[in-house]
Amino acid sequence: MKKILLATALLLAAMTARSQDYTIPVTNINQHGYPHIMPDLSLQFVMRAPDANLVQVDICGVKYDLSKDEKGVWTGSTAPQVPGFHYYSIVIDGVSVADPASESFYGCSRMMSAIDIPEAGCEDFEVKDVPHGQVRELRYYSKVTNSWRPVFVYTPASYESGKKTYPVIYIHHGGGEDHRGWVEQGRTANIMDNLIAAGKAKEAIVVSVNSNVPGRGGYSKEGMSAYASELTENIIPFIEKTFRCKKDAKNRAMCGLSMGGGQSFYIGLPRPEVFRNIGIFSSGIFGGIQGQSIDLEKEVPGMLSNTQGFNKGLDVFYISCGEQDPRISHTKKYTDQMKAAGVKVYFNSFPGDHEWQVWRKSFHEFVQKIF
Amino acid sequence: MKKILLATALLLAAMTARSQDYTIPVTNINQHGYPHIMPDLSLQFVMRAPDANLVQVDICGVKYDLSKDEKGVWTGSTAPQVPGFHYYSIVIDGVSVADPASESFYGCSRMMSAIDIPEAGCEDFEVKDVPHGQVRELRYYSKVTNSWRPVFVYTPASYESGKKTYPVIYIHHGGGEDHRGWVEQGRTANIMDNLIAAGKAKEAIVVSVNSNVPGRGGYSKEGMSAYASELTENIIPFIEKTFRCKKDAKNRAMCGLSMGGGQSFYIGLPRPEVFRNIGIFSSGIFGGIQGQSIDLEKEVPGMLSNTQGFNKGLDVFYISCGEQDPRISHTKKYTDQMKAAGVKVYFNSFPGDHEWQVWRKSFHEFVQKIF
Repeated sequence: MKKILLATALLLAAMTARSQDYTIPVTNINQHGYPHIMPDLSLQFVMRAPDANLVQVDICGVKYDLSKDEKGVWTGSTAPQVPGFHYYSIVIDGVSVADPASESFYGCSRMMSAIDIPEAGCEDFEVKDVPHGQVRELRYYSKVTNSWRPVFVYTPASYESGKKTYPVIYIHHGGGEDHRGWVEQGRTANIMDNLIAAGKAKEAIVVSVNSNVPGRGGYSKEGMSAYASELTENIIPFIEKTFRCKKDAKNRAMCGLSMGGGQSFYIGLPRPEVFRNIGIFSSGIFGGIQGQSIDLEKEVPGMLSNTQGFNKGLDVFYISCGEQDPRISHTKKYTDQMKAAGVKVYFNSFPGDHEWQVWRKSFHEFVQKIF
Repeated sequence: MKKILLATALLLAAMTARSQDYTIPVTNINQHGYPHIMPDLSLQFVMRAPDANLVQVDICGVKYDLSKDEKGVWTGSTAPQVPGFHYYSIVIDGVSVADPASESFYGCSRMMSAIDIPEAGCEDFEVKDVPHGQVRELRYYSKVTNSWRPVFVYTPASYESGKKTYPVIYIHHGGGEDHRGWVEQGRTANIMDNLIAAGKAKEAIVVSVNSNVPGRGGYSKEGMSAYASELTENIIPFIEKTFRCKKDAKNRAMCGLSMGGGQSFYIGLPRPEVFRNIGIFSSGIFGGIQGQSIDLEKEVPGMLSNTQGFNKGLDVFYISCGEQDPRISHTKKYTDQMKAAGVKVYFNSFPGDHEWQVWRKSFHEFVQKIF
């Protein structure tokens, strides 16, 4: 094992000498020199696989063939990528797997490799020299699943030694992800630490849940109802019993990305007595890629027929989407319909497809508006 | 993507029907039916890879070839395994990667798949219906590496709402692992929760550090000295500033596995003014697989020449090793040498090789002896 590692390290060191001006992404595991981020944001890959017939990199929906040299080393580059966090796979003779050179992240319903391409202006996503909060893993007993379930809770820097109570944000991952998403891919703690230190966001507790309810129908009506019980009858009481929380709707927010945005729409919006702050990032509920249409009034009774009442129930109603996300046209259409009816909704879009950089930016903005 | 997942799910469901009496390990990712643990503790694997020439499973140092059927599905079984947590890889045409069906764990210097085979009598490693502590991720600034570094801190169930101060265990991973090891592979929180609830261990804070010091020589004299500064000048002051700790040597323990056991020997033992409780699990320092010999008195001056003084400096000196670990013969030899000289050392061994089940059992025993 050690010999192989050494041989690989020497090989990579030799290849490294050929390239200039590249960046090693933070998502690479320590000793791995590849992938590289090149100045044009293309990615360079090197992998030793003498016995393979075809090695590819699959990133953001595009597969790139690597080329094999006489020593069995495969190399190749992708097209320039946009900045941000991208899941990717290595495909070895048709089998899609995580790149051993990368850290792994739970996404697409398996452990995926990913590359994080830094973006100017997004320094709030990084660890900075400011007071840092804690991210805590706890277990609560769910009467919905009849099992102990994990949850991650961010507490701000002042929490540990203080006595204050704090508002709480319940934040939701997308399909094929879990409670790890917002903590690891989403960098929630850095965003909160940096915005709080700059006085741009209120101190708040952030609860990153696993909103998959196994065996209860996933993203169906039944799944939605099961998760509504999970959230309101299990998670919220547990959090409010365990932490120093402000316990009124004004001081609770529900937000999420994609599937989690749908949950915020279907569970959060009709419950102004629980949440007065709702954030929906890149959700497919507005028709999404399939192009189905929805009836806003039917889904959230009163939204259009009693707009004044609906508005009174909310402090912040936030919707966002990536500008290259196929979901954006429907999201805009329905947001326009809401606005035309007098619904107080804030909409913003960010460059990018259905991906984490858009969601980090959405959370970064949402959290500055609430509480 | 969804179509492939569905096809795979149907395929796996069909194959599942053929097997009987298997267990799905907790380390499998939700929807994946394989690997299976069979009643004789052999493992059954199924993987779709029509274009591959050879698919193997590499577990505990042995490679098993799978067989391909006419549809391109590879199946096969391993020999019966011992219970416990085993890293493994799938080898696709010679490339060793993590199994997409498994959760990933940082080990062997990359993200590895792993299988956890339950063992009767080891229920303390599981989540039980007892008061649960929290595992917190924090960042401290290291003046050794000049960077922010992560650390995991377990606090017992009573910590959150109480005012007590607690003793602290500084626990160390092995080579090719990091601070995640004891939290994820080691199940430290479950072990602490269950032993505390049963009144078998004192309530304590457990600090799981990253004891790799990049660029400072790894497991060399220089690396050891760099990590000694990291621990005593950076980590301990940070922990004692942040948490309600008892701040004397009697209430500090240092322990670790393999490389971390070596660090506990070379850094912990000579500092009785810092740590009066030392645990060394499966360390290679006693000669290990290479069979070098060491001079105990030279490594820890006074251990043999001033045994009484050495003994007075410690409350608990614990050494353990796996019974099938090549390191055991030297570990026993040197422990016998210590005992013959009058050193108060407790030694125990557990069935198993150089692996996590031995380390979980070692920690489980060590923690019942200290404080």
